[in-house]
Amino acid sequence: MTVGEELYKLVAELYPICRSITGDGVRRTLEVVGREIGGLEVHEVPTGTRVLDWTVPREWNVRDAWVANATGERVIDFRASNLYLVSYSAPVRATMPLAELKQHLFTLPDQPDLVPYRTSYYAERWGFCASQRLVDSLPEGDYEVCVDSTLADGYLTYGEHLVEGQTTDEVLVSCHVCHPSLANDNLSGIVVASRLARMLGEGRRPRYSLRFLFIPGTIGSITWLARNEDRIDRIRHGLVLSGVGDPGGFTYKRSRRGDAEIDRTVAHVLRHSGRPHRVVEFSPYGYDERQFCSPGFDLPVGRLSRTEFATYPEYHTSADDLDLVGPAQLQESLEVCREVMEVLEGNGRYLNLSPKGEPQLGRRGLYGEIGGRSDAEERQMAMLWVLNLSDGNHSLLEVAERAGLRFALVADVASALEEAGLLSRTAGG
Amino acid sequence: MTVGEELYKLVAELYPICRSITGDGVRRTLEVVGREIGGLEVHEVPTGTRVLDWTVPREWNVRDAWVANATGERVIDFRASNLYLVSYSAPVRATMPLAELKQHLFTLPDQPDLVPYRTSYYAERWGFCASQRLVDSLPEGDYEVCVDSTLADGYLTYGEHLVEGQTTDEVLVSCHVCHPSLANDNLSGIVVASRLARMLGEGRRPRYSLRFLFIPGTIGSITWLARNEDRIDRIRHGLVLSGVGDPGGFTYKRSRRGDAEIDRTVAHVLRHSGRPHRVVEFSPYGYDERQFCSPGFDLPVGRLSRTEFATYPEYHTSADDLDLVGPAQLQESLEVCREVMEVLEGNGRYLNLSPKGEPQLGRRGLYGEIGGRSDAEERQMAMLWVLNLSDGNHSLLEVAERAGLRFALVADVASALEEAGLLSRTAGG
Amino acid sequence: MTVGEELYKLVAELYPICRSITGDGVRRTLEVVGREIGGLEVHEVPTGTRVLDWTVPREWNVRDAWVANATGERVIDFRASNLYLVSYSAPVRATMPLAELKQHLFTLPDQPDLVPYRTSYYAERWGFCASQRLVDSLPEGDYEVCVDSTLADGYLTYGEHLVEGQTTDEVLVSCHVCHPSLANDNLSGIVVASRLARMLGEGRRPRYSLRFLFIPGTIGSITWLARNEDRIDRIRHGLVLSGVGDPGGFTYKRSRRGDAEIDRTVAHVLRHSGRPHRVVEFSPYGYDERQFCSPGFDLPVGRLSRTEFATYPEYHTSADDLDLVGPAQLQESLEVCREVMEVLEGNGRYLNLSPKGEPQLGRRGLYGEIGGRSDAEERQMAMLWVLNLSDGNHSLLEVAERAGLRFALVADVASALEEAGLLSRTAGG
Repeated sequence: MTVGEELYKLVAELYPICRSITGDGVRRTLEVVGREIGGLEVHEVPTGTRVLDWTVPREWNVRDAWVANATGERVIDFRASNLYLVSYSAPVRATMPLAELKQHLFTLPDQPDLVPYRTSYYAERWGFCASQRLVDSLPEGDYEVCVDSTLADGYLTYGEHLVEGQTTDEVLVSCHVCHPSLANDNLSGIVVASRLARMLGEGRRPRYSLRFLFIPGTIGSITWLARNEDRIDRIRHGLVLSGVGDPGGFTYKRSRRGDAEIDRTVAHVLRHSGRPHRVVEFSPYGYDERQFCSPGFDLPVGRLSRTEFATYPEYHTSADDLDLVGPAQLQESLEVCREVMEVLEGNGRYLNLSPKGEPQLGRRGLYGEIGGRSDAEERQMAMLWVLNLSDGNHSLLEVAERAGLRFALVADVASALEEAGLLSRTAGG
Repeated sequence: MTVGEELYKLVAELYPICRSITGDGVRRTLEVVGREIGGLEVHEVPTGTRVLDWTVPREWNVRDAWVANATGERVIDFRASNLYLVSYSAPVRATMPLAELKQHLFTLPDQPDLVPYRTSYYAERWGFCASQRLVDSLPEGDYEVCVDSTLADGYLTYGEHLVEGQTTDEVLVSCHVCHPSLANDNLSGIVVASRLARMLGEGRRPRYSLRFLFIPGTIGSITWLARNEDRIDRIRHGLVLSGVGDPGGFTYKRSRRGDAEIDRTVAHVLRHSGRPHRVVEFSPYGYDERQFCSPGFDLPVGRLSRTEFATYPEYHTSADDLDLVGPAQLQESLEVCREVMEVLEGNGRYLNLSPKGEPQLGRRGLYGEIGGRSDAEERQMAMLWVLNLSDGNHSLLEVAERAGLRFALVADVASALEEAGLLSRTAGG
Repeated sequence: MTVGEELYKLVAELYPICRSITGDGVRRTLEVVGREIGGLEVHEVPTGTRVLDWTVPREWNVRDAWVANATGERVIDFRASNLYLVSYSAPVRATMPLAELKQHLFTLPDQPDLVPYRTSYYAERWGFCASQRLVDSLPEGDYEVCVDSTLADGYLTYGEHLVEGQTTDEVLVSCHVCHPSLANDNLSGIVVASRLARMLGEGRRPRYSLRFLFIPGTIGSITWLARNEDRIDRIRHGLVLSGVGDPGGFTYKRSRRGDAEIDRTVAHVLRHSGRPHRVVEFSPYGYDERQFCSPGFDLPVGRLSRTEFATYPEYHTSADDLDLVGPAQLQESLEVCREVMEVLEGNGRYLNLSPKGEPQLGRRGLYGEIGGRSDAEERQMAMLWVLNLSDGNHSLLEVAERAGLRFALVADVASALEEAGLLSRTAGG
């Protein structure tokens, strides 16, 4: 099985679970994530806890929910798909005529075969989602409605995993775990982040500590930020992952800073990936980058997606299912994340120790070294660029960008030059 | 009558008056302006007064001027149009053959039906302007010439009007009043500035004090600058108005600074106006922005015109008449000026008082507030942008520009957020 | 004879000489250069001298070299063209079969009629260059090989010429003298630099001291830099000249700084030259700008060429001969260099002494002055631009660039304004 197929299998395993911003669906999801990573710290934050400007809400859980017609037949059934129930629906048991029922039904008239995804976290109400076609087919008459849910004091649950690095400087990877049966948004993000965490924990100890968050959207990031306010300044770079399983090209949304190292890094990796992509400016709308990039934190956190949310027809509908995402896409997304991590890890500033004129590379075997390589000319150019720009003012990523070369090549020749005693890494670099 | 029709009527009233850089034509024009605004301070500066590098010239007035043929018939007659006489023509009474007369006649060979506009302020001479067709039709013979003018010690006259604001920081609006019967250049500017002064004086007291100048070109702005040198630094923003009545799209010429708030403001207003327009870089040639933007003052003063001067065939000819300008254009120009003033007035920097994470807008009714509005989504985006960028470093105009939203919407939600206690205006903002 | 024809004649005179990075060919070339300039300081640096990270190599000289077939006929003969011998070939005298000989033969299979140019400065070996067609025609059999060269302790030779200026601030002009019979690369650069040195030495004493270098590539500039390290900071601007005789448009390669005065100057001159040209960014590959722009020196030195090296088919082949270069191109290149020197020489910052409002130019005859000139309007614009931007922050070149006018015109009106007492040159300007 390819890595992509393994990721896809994990999406399929997580797909049926009824997640929301709180409740047992999140807990079950985090169990799977923990199993995949090989360990996950799960946090439970009590209802009513003040978190920044917000308050942790009551916990929501559902046993069953349905709408039945006069003959007792379930015409809408939560057991068939958790999308049928408006998330955070309050408990109800009632019989009502069709007209009254319809005030609680949500459809997509323009996509009459699809079921929408709807929530009502902060206004207490109940409702069902259904296809327009189904609602149109309902005959007049009385309907029995049952939402067997609990909305009670409990906890907000989130997961956190740290790959300890050589320093306490951190790279943050965050994804949301609050969506029910939607595959791209965001099971794709969850499985890619999980695998990334496992992979990076297995190799040699990285320079940065790598922090992975599996949190409910908005209230989850706000809760995490509130509980970690005094450690926020350790975050050097960050990435929100969402919607990374669909077949579209990549979208990278810059951090609020606009030109942070993470912004230049992801743009570089995508540019050299040969894959279709676009890099868009920051805007204060979207996923949890909204919170990380609020002006009081202003963290260098961007977002990686494939097709931008809300611009594809399956978005937030029952069509965001196991057909929308695919193994190859998941693997590609993981690969981009891995390369981003490699650039962040390998980037730094160097000093040319022989900065006056070019050093004689031939004498040191640095021409000879490349004699037999098919990429000899490109390597030689990379060496000249690294030597020329290693004045302490240019990071390797900046060298790569200016030279129009891949970071990996530039980092590789920098190592060779360092070994030859021609380069040294700067203290802060 | 629409506002545009009222402005057009005023252009028509001012059109026959013989204006120049000094003289009774300017005085009569300023009387009308004063009547329109409801008050105007008129300044008289004596001939010979040193103003910066210049000297106030002698005052020029004309009783009559004509060229008559051998039968005594006036073939060129100042009473028919003041354009026929070269402005500042010295008095003369003489009879001369056609050949000699022609040395004093100015025509437009490429536009043979039009009469040019010519001046000779600083070299004492006399001359007439006429259509090429008329000059070609003059038979050989003697002609009698009469310029019954005076060129004598007197005054340079200009008008000034201040709408007092809450602060002594000023917005300057300046237009030239020295052109004779030319409608677009610059009766259009005069009537738009007059009406703007009246409108802005009628509402609530503005934050800025608004200073309106009605001055002869070049020597007038130099005189005003010389007499107000110690108060120049009160000017925060300024606009020269000229040629704002023709049917062309708008032209905004940036101040010498190039990126002053007035520059960004007018560009923003024009961009969102839906009207054709262009924004051009500063150059040291043009109208009185030349003086305001001389390096010793370097004031943030731009110029608003419609079609750029000297690029339309009617420019500085008898075709710049009441047919070239129109009520709709005048009203549109006034509207642009009004919006510019509103942006300057409303612009400022704010601080997000809940900058860590997004504040919970729903709890404060700021989502509810917008529930019933058709522009709900745009308002919500505007709120998120204002909250995200209100870190004291971005003015509302900068927020609007970055968000791609109209200033008015951004200012409106900023007020709502301020009322909700989420925002406060910075001291210097 | 035109100047271009004189330059071409000089190329033809230098063409047959066998130059390399050391040896008598360089000495003979420098003799001719010295004769042309009317004086040249020739430096001899002993083999083994440490120069920065390098060591001056042994000196190479050739008496004869050939490959003869079994009948004693010379099939490859150094006397026919010095390109036939790999530069720095070690002495050899041997007989060998064709297969073994071929390991020492260099050809251009894609350009079968041309002889390549090859060197082996730092790896001791011997070799011949030939056309593919010739090699293909060689029958099997034994061949006698003779390289009658010496590779022995001696000297590295380079030439230097200083036109003393009013200050010790220097403009550096450098060209390489190490290529054998290649006309464009770089006899064109040598003859243009020589003539430029003569021309600029003949007129009035320039503001800058002008230093001309005639040096072997790489090792020559490294040697010069090593020997002049303590005087390097006198260099204010510099230009490497190479490949300036071919019929292509101009290429200017910016200095490492990217926006040095030399970069803006050459771009300005080329833009106003009406000649096809392109300006390319710095890269650490190319001619001696690599050394001048190494990070430890980072001198403001760009490179002027016509067609960029290695992008034309004749490059480093026997086709870079007297047919590739032409009198008109050489003269044009000289003219561009001369104009560049004029801009550097005339550039400076001025202060408008009447900065408040425009000074009254008419009173000073500065309008009158231009009355009869066909370029009156452009001159007037130039004056207004110079006055407006002469605030001590803009050099004349910057004024010219912003105004879109030729530097010569801007400098000319600046002189007129200085004479009129309206402008003064700043101390540092």
